[in-house]
Amino acid sequence: MDVLLTGANGTVGTAITENLDHEFTTLDVEGDPDYTTDIADYDAIRPAFDEKEAVVHLAGYPATDATWEQALTNNIIGTGDVLRAASESGVDRVIFASSNHVVGMYEDEHAPALYEPDYDLVVDHTDPIRPDSHYGASKACGEAFGRQYVENEGMKFFALRIGSVRDPGYDHPYGDAERGVEAGKWNRGSEGYQREVARMKGTWLSRRDCAHLVECCLSADRDFEILYGVSDNDRRWFDIEQARTSVGYDPQDNGEEWNSPP
Amino acid sequence: MDVLLTGANGTVGTAITENLDHEFTTLDVEGDPDYTTDIADYDAIRPAFDEKEAVVHLAGYPATDATWEQALTNNIIGTGDVLRAASESGVDRVIFASSNHVVGMYEDEHAPALYEPDYDLVVDHTDPIRPDSHYGASKACGEAFGRQYVENEGMKFFALRIGSVRDPGYDHPYGDAERGVEAGKWNRGSEGYQREVARMKGTWLSRRDCAHLVECCLSADRDFEILYGVSDNDRRWFDIEQARTSVGYDPQDNGEEWNSPP
Repeated sequence: MDVLLTGANGTVGTAITENLDHEFTTLDVEGDPDYTTDIADYDAIRPAFDEKEAVVHLAGYPATDATWEQALTNNIIGTGDVLRAASESGVDRVIFASSNHVVGMYEDEHAPALYEPDYDLVVDHTDPIRPDSHYGASKACGEAFGRQYVENEGMKFFALRIGSVRDPGYDHPYGDAERGVEAGKWNRGSEGYQREVARMKGTWLSRRDCAHLVECCLSADRDFEILYGVSDNDRRWFDIEQARTSVGYDPQDNGEEWNSPP
Repeated sequence: MDVLLTGANGTVGTAITENLDHEFTTLDVEGDPDYTTDIADYDAIRPAFDEKEAVVHLAGYPATDATWEQALTNNIIGTGDVLRAASESGVDRVIFASSNHVVGMYEDEHAPALYEPDYDLVVDHTDPIRPDSHYGASKACGEAFGRQYVENEGMKFFALRIGSVRDPGYDHPYGDAERGVEAGKWNRGSEGYQREVARMKGTWLSRRDCAHLVECCLSADRDFEILYGVSDNDRRWFDIEQARTSVGYDPQDNGEEWNSPP
């Protein structure tokens, strides 16, 4: 398929291009993509949508420390512009990198007990949103925009509430904890390290599972889905049954398979 | 209470000031309020929030014909600014004029059968949003922002998905239909007129019920609610049980009591 990938050079973008076999047109704010532009510049992004069969929209400010202005410009206006550009150029399938932070307060409320393997909580697509930040709220806006385009423009829209995708070399539940060791933040015996690992065993989405979930959405005969993007982790508290049944998601990885640092 | 009322000169704003007894500070873009400013001008609106106990936020573009730019500036940025200003000035209670158009596609899908008295559909606060327009999506964004401030700033936030509030003189289910007669759009025997009346018998929120619902939210000991604002209409398809049980809403009017044009 001819697929436009916004935010192509980021952690999720490279997981997709490295694992999937499509004609990708890349757009990013840096790093020598096909289109170099800020996502919230409508006139600059619009030509990239011509003749595409789908858009995978990953560009945006990627973290919960976003200020209101950062979330507004990069995520709210950026995603509004992407949907407008898709609609105006006849691209009828958009896959959107939403975030688990749309419902982040469930984690906040139940942590750290939530990180244990047998904790009994499942958050799914029918639960009320509980954003933990401007970032989380801005992703909820993107989901609302998508729904509007589905309802009124015949678009197909998939919001992926992605857990934790990491760069190559850190693509396992110890990734963030090990980066903390490298940065001198903690040592391997510390509580912070252990907590980070326990959390990541729940939220990890391996790079290949991430790419596979996007692949599923590129071909699924569905109009609108809100899906959680985590691997088949024993400790996950995000539902993946909806992704299994609606788009055929069949993850290969499980955070529990790593019992010690790599 | 000391209450800031944005969009104070509009149809809903005047229903509130005419029916409730508080110290209202008024803000509007026109009409000689205490603060004359566009709602999306943060520096201009910020001083109006000082020393207030609550904000009733009604300002915004009010209709489904909003362009993306109109919805973005007036409703998304405007509501984001109102919540920021409330938070920064210590106002911990915001009542937000959301809209039935957040879930407008349920109506679109079931109309006109939905307008009959015995049609079996109830849309409540747990149903997925289905915006019918940029306007509806922009109101969903306001709800998401509110939820974020509740979760992270200890705010109390009430989103009122208001049905149809009309100006004095048109405050009944025949209001819009009669305005159509006055405008030469249809006559009283026409299908358009009948359909408008049937719809309004379901969506009508009388001015006194509107003010009462706001009054309930000004004193309710709740953190976050999404409530439908319609009178106790036989033909309503929007749930009002949540409003009854959570904030004590007790509407006095019913669209069915008007059997002929006034």
